[in-house]
Amino acid sequence: MKIALAQINYHIGNFEGNLQKMLAAVESAQKQGADLICFGELAVCGYPPRDFLEFDDFIRKSAASIEALRLASKGIGIVVGAPSHNPVVEGKDLYNSAYFLFDEQILGVQHKALLPTYDIFDEYRYFEPASAFHTVTFKGKKIALSICEDIWNVGNENPLYTICPLDEMMPEKPDFILNISASPFDYAHAELRIRTIRANVERYKIPLFYTNHVGAQTDIIFDGGSIVMSPDGKVFDEMPYFEESLQVYSLEEVQRGGRVSEQPKDKMRLIHDALVVGIRDYFQKLNFRKAILGLSGGIDSAVTAVLASRALGPENVRVLLMPSQFSTGHSVDDARDLAERLGIQYDIIAIKPMYDAFETALHPHFTGLPFNVTEENIQARVRGTLLMAMSNKFGNILLNTTNKSEMAVGYGTLYGDMCGGLSVLGDVYKTEIYELVNYINKDGEVVPRNTITKPPSAELRPGQKDSDSLPPYEVLDPLLYQYIECRQGPRELVEKGFDENLVKRVLKMVNINEFKREQAAPVLRISSKGFGMGRRMPIVGKYLS
Amino acid sequence: MKIALAQINYHIGNFEGNLQKMLAAVESAQKQGADLICFGELAVCGYPPRDFLEFDDFIRKSAASIEALRLASKGIGIVVGAPSHNPVVEGKDLYNSAYFLFDEQILGVQHKALLPTYDIFDEYRYFEPASAFHTVTFKGKKIALSICEDIWNVGNENPLYTICPLDEMMPEKPDFILNISASPFDYAHAELRIRTIRANVERYKIPLFYTNHVGAQTDIIFDGGSIVMSPDGKVFDEMPYFEESLQVYSLEEVQRGGRVSEQPKDKMRLIHDALVVGIRDYFQKLNFRKAILGLSGGIDSAVTAVLASRALGPENVRVLLMPSQFSTGHSVDDARDLAERLGIQYDIIAIKPMYDAFETALHPHFTGLPFNVTEENIQARVRGTLLMAMSNKFGNILLNTTNKSEMAVGYGTLYGDMCGGLSVLGDVYKTEIYELVNYINKDGEVVPRNTITKPPSAELRPGQKDSDSLPPYEVLDPLLYQYIECRQGPRELVEKGFDENLVKRVLKMVNINEFKREQAAPVLRISSKGFGMGRRMPIVGKYLS
Repeated sequence: MKIALAQINYHIGNFEGNLQKMLAAVESAQKQGADLICFGELAVCGYPPRDFLEFDDFIRKSAASIEALRLASKGIGIVVGAPSHNPVVEGKDLYNSAYFLFDEQILGVQHKALLPTYDIFDEYRYFEPASAFHTVTFKGKKIALSICEDIWNVGNENPLYTICPLDEMMPEKPDFILNISASPFDYAHAELRIRTIRANVERYKIPLFYTNHVGAQTDIIFDGGSIVMSPDGKVFDEMPYFEESLQVYSLEEVQRGGRVSEQPKDKMRLIHDALVVGIRDYFQKLNFRKAILGLSGGIDSAVTAVLASRALGPENVRVLLMPSQFSTGHSVDDARDLAERLGIQYDIIAIKPMYDAFETALHPHFTGLPFNVTEENIQARVRGTLLMAMSNKFGNILLNTTNKSEMAVGYGTLYGDMCGGLSVLGDVYKTEIYELVNYINKDGEVVPRNTITKPPSAELRPGQKDSDSLPPYEVLDPLLYQYIECRQGPRELVEKGFDENLVKRVLKMVNINEFKREQAAPVLRISSKGFGMGRRMPIVGKYLS
Repeated sequence: MKIALAQINYHIGNFEGNLQKMLAAVESAQKQGADLICFGELAVCGYPPRDFLEFDDFIRKSAASIEALRLASKGIGIVVGAPSHNPVVEGKDLYNSAYFLFDEQILGVQHKALLPTYDIFDEYRYFEPASAFHTVTFKGKKIALSICEDIWNVGNENPLYTICPLDEMMPEKPDFILNISASPFDYAHAELRIRTIRANVERYKIPLFYTNHVGAQTDIIFDGGSIVMSPDGKVFDEMPYFEESLQVYSLEEVQRGGRVSEQPKDKMRLIHDALVVGIRDYFQKLNFRKAILGLSGGIDSAVTAVLASRALGPENVRVLLMPSQFSTGHSVDDARDLAERLGIQYDIIAIKPMYDAFETALHPHFTGLPFNVTEENIQARVRGTLLMAMSNKFGNILLNTTNKSEMAVGYGTLYGDMCGGLSVLGDVYKTEIYELVNYINKDGEVVPRNTITKPPSAELRPGQKDSDSLPPYEVLDPLLYQYIECRQGPRELVEKGFDENLVKRVLKMVNINEFKREQAAPVLRISSKGFGMGRRMPIVGKYLS
């Protein structure tokens, strides 16, 4: 038996687009002699569809795609994910289902049992969990069909769940396992995924075929990396990261095993490629082509410009250099240097005239009051307004360049440098950005050395440095990581050796700035806990604040 | 037996503040001879605590409050909600629990079984549902203890759930039902709440005592309205809306029934009072005192100014009048007129100098291109920057004045008129704002007549009116209501008689503007479906767009 895995970049709600991609893959798989082709979880509608699922129309359109695939299943089995109606009054209205289609028939429908409801996942909001588990028989083979999380409770060892779907199917003695997933990327996820698949294979001693989505849906990035594992627990094949792919495998060869083929898993390469895909898909899926950003001469905007050029092509990226009276001369030089190296259009607009106009207008109201954060913010907001004006006039979407460290502690101006349609680096700590720039420069200097070596500064007052108001990033970032990613509280952080006063100060900064993050652009998610829908914090809370 | 219901304005994460309020209520109830006092769901930590629940420290602090209340329970029963550890490895780590404390003992702990996971609710993200149900015996009475949603599946008729907690307790023949809730306000909720409580009382023929939270947690507003219902199905008492209250009831009198005492439920009064509380609590709980907003002479900013004055006192509200060359003369007059009537500080800053400075700076880049939405947005962003500068300099928090109709169709400028820490009217349709202004003016003209009668306009180009680019609000609002609140899709909307092209156009406007709403201020929620955490839509989705 020949089994094709199709790793596809779906688009939420784009039923026609998703269907055309799947029909093309069916045709290609058939040409390659495949008996069976597997698509992803909720492939017909994309993932996560969120509250679109509450619209009957959306469910009808999903059903229409399944109908079209059923009619295309002459001579080839098709496994595909879609929402399906729960026919019973009791329970939620929908199941998250895997359809097995063949010869214009529905051979079987297996619903998802384990519904992740943590971090970015809200599946229990929409779906009723499966209560029945049966294999599907196809061309003499018994197939255990499962959906994403269903294989993440191996032998019921995950305390979140009380059922292990594959355990339930084993009495029927399946020949192999299929898992159709929509499992989002983070830089540590690929290792974890392989470990989990291996735990299943070691438990059941049969091959496992796993298909994933690829591509980004706003902030959520899917890396692909679909996997075929032989009963010997070896990765028979791992499909490429961050690109669409269709591969056909011989079940007999997979059964035999003895082959290992894995993708490289260097953290910075993964983050780099994820961010490039994140930018590209945001633009393609919203039907935009061109980006704009402010280039300050600092490292964050430099890295953002590089990633945008790689995602969209240098001809589709333009930048504004917007020096103030506090900008150092070499900031403009460094920015211009980078723009020229990348071959992107740059324009220079000094912000002083606008800043002065605000100062004059506000002067009667501010008499006698000292220069403070107000005036710093006016500079940032003048820049935001200039960028948005260019964006509005020319249709270039503004990319935000804020990093995760700044975003965490609220070191940024709302409606100023926090402007933008998409935050490229909002899940990358400042210390990681230095690693990322080394990766970018590994084969030659792309980002100018001076941009990397100078001390970080917002340049909003004379001689300002980030380290005036923030702890050094080498101290700050590990503390933020423990608090944000690992949910360690003040007691645990002090036990881990962080200074008690620093812990108190930093946690307070993080918590009181929730109101800013609430209004931030969506953040491309590359860690296990990004700012966005996966981290839900009260705004008026008075906790560690 | 005398039972006290305490309807308290809790504050998320403010353990000390919440505990002090509860201890004071315990003392007061004891003085009034109460045998038992009931607080709200998750009262020790406030509702909704969201991902704070993922921190052990937060759970430890909750436990410490329960311990303090236990020590305060000498001679009085205390029923109070708190998260509690699930001692079993299997299942989620926490329960949403009701503690029954008396004489320094824990008489019983009942966990919540029905965990709402829809709209603003995410309880299944955090909690394990209860699987055991027992009454608590106190002073010779058997009490059926339940938490909020637990009474919303009367006789298992709610398809979302498969268990009816009170049905499970009835074999123990309880004498009365206690329900501790955190049930958010919407303008239709009070009626629904009474119907649901009555359905329980009619089923079990025993009294039901229901306590609710009061006050706002950012966008979520609790109205209080705690209820005592007699076995005759009559509302023995409904406690006041939108204020803290402590009432002591004689179980025997409630048992006897025959009394009806309800609060008035006029929609506009409810909305008005909810918004005032929403503003007040946002400021009090974040430790702010003063507000600022832009007053345009239009109805939305006028209503916002009235509500802010009532919430914070006129001495704590200041406004900016920021005319442009497109502002009509009477706009400034109308705005000044209102400010003077309200007795709030106003300043006038013409935006032309800043606008001109931007135009000059951008001119070399915009040569030959016509005036369009770019220039309109610059005006809005200059105003946003001026308001934020005043906010930064004087500590006045900016209130946003966008209404729900505009927010829905994206008729507003990001980083311009969409600025603000809190959206006051973002859940109130334009047509409802006209009703609200009539309510405000019912005892005399507060908002100037001219502000109400002139056609709505953003005044961003000569002679502009909202009706140039939007359908009339009388047509638009019912369509938005059916789509947003009632989740009707295109087919159903046309069946309801809406014009097919209009449906297509409006749904597209709503869907393509998700990126704007993503960056909007939190919106005080007064309807059953507000923009915010209760409505979760993809941004890159290509659906009805």
